[in-house]
Amino acid sequence: MSDPSNQINTQLEELSLKVKSQGELIRTLKSKPTTEKNPTEISEQVEILKQYKTTLEDFKKSNGLDLTTTTNQNPSKPTTKSKSKSKTAEPKFQLKVPKGTKDHHPKDMILREKIFQTITKVFKLHGAITIDTPVFELKEILSGKYGEDSKLIYDLQDQGGELCSLRYDLTVPFARFLAMNAKEFNTIKRYHIAKVYRRDQPAMTKGRMREFYQCDFDFAGTTDPMVADAEVLTIACEVLQELEVGEFTIKVNHRKILDGIFSLCGVPDDKFRSISSAVDKLDKMSWLDVKKEMTEEKGLDPVIADQIGEYVKLKGSEELLQKLSEDSKFMNNKSAKEGLNEMILLFKYINVFGITPKISFDLSLARGLDYYTGVIYEAVVEGSAPPVPLPAQVQSDPSNQSNSKSISKKPSEEEEIDETTIGVGSIAAGGRYDNLVGMFSSGKDQIPCVGISFGVERIFTILKSKQENELKSKEVDVFVMSVGDGLLLERMKVCKELWDVGISAEFMYKVKPKPSKQFETVEKDFIRFAIILGPDEIKLNQLRIKEQLGKDQNIESKDKDGILINRNEMINWLLERLKK
Amino acid sequence: MSDPSNQINTQLEELSLKVKSQGELIRTLKSKPTTEKNPTEISEQVEILKQYKTTLEDFKKSNGLDLTTTTNQNPSKPTTKSKSKSKTAEPKFQLKVPKGTKDHHPKDMILREKIFQTITKVFKLHGAITIDTPVFELKEILSGKYGEDSKLIYDLQDQGGELCSLRYDLTVPFARFLAMNAKEFNTIKRYHIAKVYRRDQPAMTKGRMREFYQCDFDFAGTTDPMVADAEVLTIACEVLQELEVGEFTIKVNHRKILDGIFSLCGVPDDKFRSISSAVDKLDKMSWLDVKKEMTEEKGLDPVIADQIGEYVKLKGSEELLQKLSEDSKFMNNKSAKEGLNEMILLFKYINVFGITPKISFDLSLARGLDYYTGVIYEAVVEGSAPPVPLPAQVQSDPSNQSNSKSISKKPSEEEEIDETTIGVGSIAAGGRYDNLVGMFSSGKDQIPCVGISFGVERIFTILKSKQENELKSKEVDVFVMSVGDGLLLERMKVCKELWDVGISAEFMYKVKPKPSKQFETVEKDFIRFAIILGPDEIKLNQLRIKEQLGKDQNIESKDKDGILINRNEMINWLLERLKK
Repeated sequence: MSDPSNQINTQLEELSLKVKSQGELIRTLKSKPTTEKNPTEISEQVEILKQYKTTLEDFKKSNGLDLTTTTNQNPSKPTTKSKSKSKTAEPKFQLKVPKGTKDHHPKDMILREKIFQTITKVFKLHGAITIDTPVFELKEILSGKYGEDSKLIYDLQDQGGELCSLRYDLTVPFARFLAMNAKEFNTIKRYHIAKVYRRDQPAMTKGRMREFYQCDFDFAGTTDPMVADAEVLTIACEVLQELEVGEFTIKVNHRKILDGIFSLCGVPDDKFRSISSAVDKLDKMSWLDVKKEMTEEKGLDPVIADQIGEYVKLKGSEELLQKLSEDSKFMNNKSAKEGLNEMILLFKYINVFGITPKISFDLSLARGLDYYTGVIYEAVVEGSAPPVPLPAQVQSDPSNQSNSKSISKKPSEEEEIDETTIGVGSIAAGGRYDNLVGMFSSGKDQIPCVGISFGVERIFTILKSKQENELKSKEVDVFVMSVGDGLLLERMKVCKELWDVGISAEFMYKVKPKPSKQFETVEKDFIRFAIILGPDEIKLNQLRIKEQLGKDQNIESKDKDGILINRNEMINWLLERLKK
Repeated sequence: MSDPSNQINTQLEELSLKVKSQGELIRTLKSKPTTEKNPTEISEQVEILKQYKTTLEDFKKSNGLDLTTTTNQNPSKPTTKSKSKSKTAEPKFQLKVPKGTKDHHPKDMILREKIFQTITKVFKLHGAITIDTPVFELKEILSGKYGEDSKLIYDLQDQGGELCSLRYDLTVPFARFLAMNAKEFNTIKRYHIAKVYRRDQPAMTKGRMREFYQCDFDFAGTTDPMVADAEVLTIACEVLQELEVGEFTIKVNHRKILDGIFSLCGVPDDKFRSISSAVDKLDKMSWLDVKKEMTEEKGLDPVIADQIGEYVKLKGSEELLQKLSEDSKFMNNKSAKEGLNEMILLFKYINVFGITPKISFDLSLARGLDYYTGVIYEAVVEGSAPPVPLPAQVQSDPSNQSNSKSISKKPSEEEEIDETTIGVGSIAAGGRYDNLVGMFSSGKDQIPCVGISFGVERIFTILKSKQENELKSKEVDVFVMSVGDGLLLERMKVCKELWDVGISAEFMYKVKPKPSKQFETVEKDFIRFAIILGPDEIKLNQLRIKEQLGKDQNIESKDKDGILINRNEMINWLLERLKK
């Protein structure tokens, strides 16, 4: 084992060298003739230098090193035996997980696995199969898919070879998979539950994780319009109902409707995406602030902004479809009309699936990601959305009352809830993305897709807060103990018999454990049966079994010492009891 | 959507800039006065420059760019609409996964999940609970734990903030977890199934994956000697039996015995680890080659090497324990004696657990990792180990015959098998590591540990090759189809009824699908029941159900058109049939 204090020195050396080399690079860049000098490049490199310096300072601080430490010492002779480790240079490791990540403890894992099982069960009901893709992709695969969020992608260090990045979501890897396997999987219902990575800026990390699970269902393949889309929404409802997250609403909108509105209101073509991203903030900002962003930051004519405001305030159900189809200005726009016709079809189908009461057609829903092309949606749990002060005229508009499930009116009591995914209050989101696969295959193998991603971390937080009794961290049926003597070999033998018939069992790893310690374990871990071995019983080929009746009930069972049974009957007796 | 051809240009720009800056850095370093010049640093930076150049060339080639491409073009104006994408600059993405990684397809996922379930079931039988840790750790956490293999660790790029690395195994993160949670988890049986990352050198990558699953069980806590160790070996046997990997042997040795042998043979203290790592190669190299490495490469006296050879050739069971305990030279060494006494105890316990026939005490087993302190083991499947020519005197030594399970004699027919983990032929490995947790907590919270890691990828390869029939990629009970008319809404309604009672069902996403296409799906996916809707039947509130009898049997069931049942009886009829 190499000496940890040497590790520290080596790392210090490396960090110092980086600062030094970077400084030299900058000096070289600055010393160029003015014609060749590139100020952008210089300022970029200065930023990198600052980061290196911060890292170096942090490292020194966390290892209790002052600035005079021997950074130029030669660390090339690691000691080969840990015995020789000098006590004075005791390392102070940063004993923590990386920022934005966490360990998941056993009890949390039980709830998490329960969530995964429930979601998987629903996916399989609908005939979905699963795939797995690498945690990192070639850097170029992820490029240009996430709009402004691309800066949040984690890159792997260039250690020679390909440039790679950690996956940012499961959708782009899925599209890459489809493009690579277009022959075999031109039609597929797949689910994928796995971790994704987002290097959120420190200012945005309040409770937001950098490593978190996503749980995706997608259908890829050519279909008649809106049929698969309707099934995806049905799956979303079934999952959220099965998970018992509480009352929820799924907001639905259509990219073509949004684009149509922007177009008919007179938004210039090159401002569509930036105005759309402003609209997307209506679930966390007031209309006045959104309008400000549109006009002051993004230079939109306030008259146009107000027209947009008239549309994006609308939400409802089939009566809103009706209302828009009577709006001739709206229907004269080709994109808006196409979108609306698809929404009418969608509602026809979700009526059959019986989920219409859960769906809110909401024209303010925009969704940030670049790749959506059709219907988009976002599920929110009631009572968890933040207050959104709407302008007076919007509040009083009767069409705003039409959706009884509207969630944007009551202020939240849970604003601090850890939100790791798509938007505040949202626990699932997705949409149709018909062009993404084509981006990987020069348009030859275009495969239209529609899907949804469940925000497992947020669902976890909601379910955990609802949990009335703390979950047991493990489910062990039997604890094999001894009184009167250690009886280690006897305890081992009994355990092995139990394991062999599929009964879970534990014993204490001591030659002569104290009876009190053993009873403590039984109670602490809520283990149902204690098998008690004693020297007298063993002579008679007998043992005692004591059943614990649970925390709520009296822990001492009626038969205080357990019941005495014949050793040969033990397995059958337990199997019989465990069946009940 | 930003224009992909712009992405290419941006990336090209970045890569070119890196080559340029690196070149400048090297020129600066080289221009220093001789006294300050550091040749090591220069050659390191030159290596990095070469890598950058290779990456740039590869990128140009894979994107069909020649050397005159506009690398200095300003790419700062991305077009905002994909319509404007120029067809002439069609991007040629490298449509692949990163080197050493792969996608797991649906059928493989079914087998993989079956493996995970089997392993998890055994772990839980023994009362294990699970935790999860981040995929990356602080770089310093992994430093100094993997001996020569540390160079295989993947680092994340320094994008500002902490320096992180992808985990190399699950053991070091577990030790870090224990050190951070020593109060709550000073005793824990935990399992962890997750991916680990090893950046193997290209020369070593023949079939070796850079991303692969590990499946670990570890016990942490203070116990009486060898009790937990014996249970871990028992778990290994139970897992391999449950998985039906075929005949296997678990080779067992003890670090103290190895150290004792090196010491009593006269190996200098500072050569212990390097000689140990040579011994470790005896499962893939002949004794003569290992001896050559010891003497020629590592400078060991050939007389000493021969003495070591006499010991490490030994393998057997309890009679070997007996033999060594009568070897006075061996027993006079404190370390060897301690190790042997622990092995005697271990065999006492595994006798009770009934697994002794599976265990081979093998003095050539060394295991590379730095952190083991006690018993070490490695499970090998019979017939999958490579031929190991032993020196004549070893081959003829009677003690070599004592273990009937010895696996090192027959040459393998499966040498090409993808081996991603510990050693050739090995499918599980582990040992005791009593000091690892202490490395993270300045020795205050020392928690002794013992554990095992299963090489899931290799187990997968073995089981896949044994699989007689290809697995179905999905398990859907019912396909709802129509003849005579499209009946989309009717098909949807029937599906929703089935989903609501937990019967998995699919339908075709077409308004008017052809009957032949629908029948094809039923057959292709081996779906057991086809529910056939027709206009005439619907009028009478009836439908047909046709059962597929499987691939082997006649696909056409006796009742060619299926049986006619009342619509209201559908659910009960199916539930009844599916129960069987």
